Amino acid sequence: MENKSYVVEMNGNGVHEKIALNCVSAKGFNGIEIHHKSAKDTVHPAKLKSRRQRWNIRPSKMSINTLNPIRSIVDGMTLTPNPEKPMIALSIGDPTVFGNMPTDDKVLQAMKDAIDSHKYNGYAPSVGYQRSREVVANFYSCPEAPLEAEDVLLTSGCSQAIDLAITVLCNPGDTILVPCPGFSLYKTLAVSLGIQVRLYNLLPEKSWEIDLQHLESLIDDRTSCLIVNNPSNPCGSVYSKEHLQDILSVASKRCLPILADEIYGDMVFPGCKYQSMASLSHDVPILACGGLAKRWLVPGWRLGWILIHDRNQNFGKEIRQGLVKLSQRILGACTIVQGAIESILNDTPQHFYQRTIHFLKSNSEICFSELSTVPGLTPVMPSGAMYLMVGIEMEHFPEFQDDVQFTERLVTEQSVFCLPATAFEYPNYFRIVVTVPEEMMVEACARIREFCQRHYRPRSQESNELDQ
Amino acid sequence: MENKSYVVEMNGNGVHEKIALNCVSAKGFNGIEIHHKSAKDTVHPAKLKSRRQRWNIRPSKMSINTLNPIRSIVDGMTLTPNPEKPMIALSIGDPTVFGNMPTDDKVLQAMKDAIDSHKYNGYAPSVGYQRSREVVANFYSCPEAPLEAEDVLLTSGCSQAIDLAITVLCNPGDTILVPCPGFSLYKTLAVSLGIQVRLYNLLPEKSWEIDLQHLESLIDDRTSCLIVNNPSNPCGSVYSKEHLQDILSVASKRCLPILADEIYGDMVFPGCKYQSMASLSHDVPILACGGLAKRWLVPGWRLGWILIHDRNQNFGKEIRQGLVKLSQRILGACTIVQGAIESILNDTPQHFYQRTIHFLKSNSEICFSELSTVPGLTPVMPSGAMYLMVGIEMEHFPEFQDDVQFTERLVTEQSVFCLPATAFEYPNYFRIVVTVPEEMMVEACARIREFCQRHYRPRSQESNELDQ
Repeated sequence: MENKSYVVEMNGNGVHEKIALNCVSAKGFNGIEIHHKSAKDTVHPAKLKSRRQRWNIRPSKMSINTLNPIRSIVDGMTLTPNPEKPMIALSIGDPTVFGNMPTDDKVLQAMKDAIDSHKYNGYAPSVGYQRSREVVANFYSCPEAPLEAEDVLLTSGCSQAIDLAITVLCNPGDTILVPCPGFSLYKTLAVSLGIQVRLYNLLPEKSWEIDLQHLESLIDDRTSCLIVNNPSNPCGSVYSKEHLQDILSVASKRCLPILADEIYGDMVFPGCKYQSMASLSHDVPILACGGLAKRWLVPGWRLGWILIHDRNQNFGKEIRQGLVKLSQRILGACTIVQGAIESILNDTPQHFYQRTIHFLKSNSEICFSELSTVPGLTPVMPSGAMYLMVGIEMEHFPEFQDDVQFTERLVTEQSVFCLPATAFEYPNYFRIVVTVPEEMMVEACARIREFCQRHYRPRSQESNELDQ
Repeated sequence: MENKSYVVEMNGNGVHEKIALNCVSAKGFNGIEIHHKSAKDTVHPAKLKSRRQRWNIRPSKMSINTLNPIRSIVDGMTLTPNPEKPMIALSIGDPTVFGNMPTDDKVLQAMKDAIDSHKYNGYAPSVGYQRSREVVANFYSCPEAPLEAEDVLLTSGCSQAIDLAITVLCNPGDTILVPCPGFSLYKTLAVSLGIQVRLYNLLPEKSWEIDLQHLESLIDDRTSCLIVNNPSNPCGSVYSKEHLQDILSVASKRCLPILADEIYGDMVFPGCKYQSMASLSHDVPILACGGLAKRWLVPGWRLGWILIHDRNQNFGKEIRQGLVKLSQRILGACTIVQGAIESILNDTPQHFYQRTIHFLKSNSEICFSELSTVPGLTPVMPSGAMYLMVGIEMEHFPEFQDDVQFTERLVTEQSVFCLPATAFEYPNYFRIVVTVPEEMMVEACARIREFCQRHYRPRSQESNELDQ
């Protein structure tokens, strides 16, 4: 069979574009004219004409599918503050922006010592220096879930830790279970990799515990990972030992590995106890992700880690090897921070951690008690992390279609910006970051009250009741 | 139609495995027994029984396909040094390991100043601080290829820069053109993403210029990126203006964007001139990747960048947006290094760069002139970077099957390790890293000479000639 080239001109929708066919014969079909050309008409084979003779560079599917819901929602909002009131942003999940929560001097000194040592300028192994891994292992090891250096991978921030964990466990087409409301990065990473996200419900009336029945109903043969975020962004919830055990029971029964995002681990208020998932697991293998960002208040430094918990060898060697291989794609954390980690973990004084927690608790209490008495709002008191979720009784705010409009107008009128929880797939809530200075928190709550009082409408039924 | 569940037991190859069918009817077929079970027999739907009742966690295809040729070759070698000779590793592409090439004090001071400023602990934008991007843009801008802050993305090392550049330009199934011999990371990244690699030949007899005819023959409709590495690892070659223009002509004619890996940019020996691809491009859009690693001798710090050159808008907004979106997956470089970059680029004294280059040239000359007179070896003199390639005339070393065996025995007998160029897809060469202290280089060359003299065999034809 002779292989001839044909150039086909396609007309449609006003777009005039040449495409090429490389085929034995071509028939005219609807809307397409076919011109047979001899080889002499073209300098190059027709096949190359199509794409290679004009610039037509398209971004990859992966880049198109890398979606940042926070960006796309915030970018779609009209955020014009009231010029008579200074802006207060309760939206930024960065504890360092207001200068009221500096890291400890020991942490900074550790970095300078690492620089002065001249020991940490070269390449580290892609999984991190052995000594640094050992230090992290010792810091997080406990009798119920012992860790050694080999169980630790150092990464470029907790984001890379989550990325590597998802990437090693899931193939395109698999599904992954993600909390709702939940941190948007899980979905961003998964969708960009062609992994399907299934959202399991958290229950605000039960301090954001997981709806286990709903969770279990989502598990099927293609489910390759359960993400549990405890303490939680955006909820500020901290799960009890019993609830964690219940989650583990589901995972154990259904043989589902867990990605435990524990970046807010130990950031829990007095009276509440944080337990790592791994310390309670008998058989469920866990990739626990963490880092320096939150507890040490240096999110920009990009030092994260994966702790591999696999006492029953359910991950086995292959998952470990897979993680090591993936770590070689772009290497991990800055070596200066790796060199400083020993002193950061071992020499940071206890009162630094306590001061942070005390401040977060105090600010949360101010915010919660203020907003509890605002008509139409239902704040949920957190037990840890840096966030507080507030429900909007939308039926009392008929002017606004949803949380996005509500928070947009809150900026317009009161110059207070809270992130609408649609960004966490949870409409009709908004998230408050409680790291702002106390006076700012007090002022912001007063303005939110004023805003709600102005826009609150009693429900028609209630107003009927009041009329009676 | 009624939807019933059936459990099917499958026997084969000694593996006894339960799989599930969820279907309306099932017929027995070869090797498979079918048991109809009533719903009462099982607590859970049969569908769930298959995979979800035992642990069966497999690493993802992507992790399996993340291959590091250097690791797999080196791990397969028996590297037992001669106990009577101290080991000399000429294999490590890290200029810091021997302590003879420290970075400049200004570079270290810039880091300490960034720490002391307390300004660089929070999150930076995912593409880097605006000011840091501006500083890099100013440093690399030239009249022929002007740059602004918006043209710069800061990344976690040059590896992430290359990763983002490949990822935004290529889809799975596309092909990418990669130099041979070439840095192995291109292939590692591409293959892990399902992108096919086509190797184009470099010509050692023409100082490793690209075989342009071969290059062009590899281009087709699925080719989405041409990677050019100049100056080159492992070759140490630096292309002339004319050769770069010839490469750009091919790319222009075939409308192919270029990923220019210029991490060794400006690291060229006196008498030789480095020109960036972008400064010579009229229409070809270029993603130029670089970083602090080599020129500033701090590879562990993981600060890299992508410079977007697109004067004719052939990338357009979409590629830029794609890069920004991809940068949000794991964020980029450590903020302390980002904060230090202004001083690092602007305050590092010229004599620091000159000293590095002088040392690399001097060591290259020692190595080249020593090995030029070793029978059976054909070193290629580099013009820049930190490497020198040495051809092995394998016909003169009949004891050894290939470069891997040759370099393995060189360790066994002489305790000198050079990376076999099979790691760069280029058999029968080995790569020498010229950053080792001078006395080590001299000693290593003497040992290589001794090794070759012992194993060199004249070809039979030559020995015949000698006999005559």
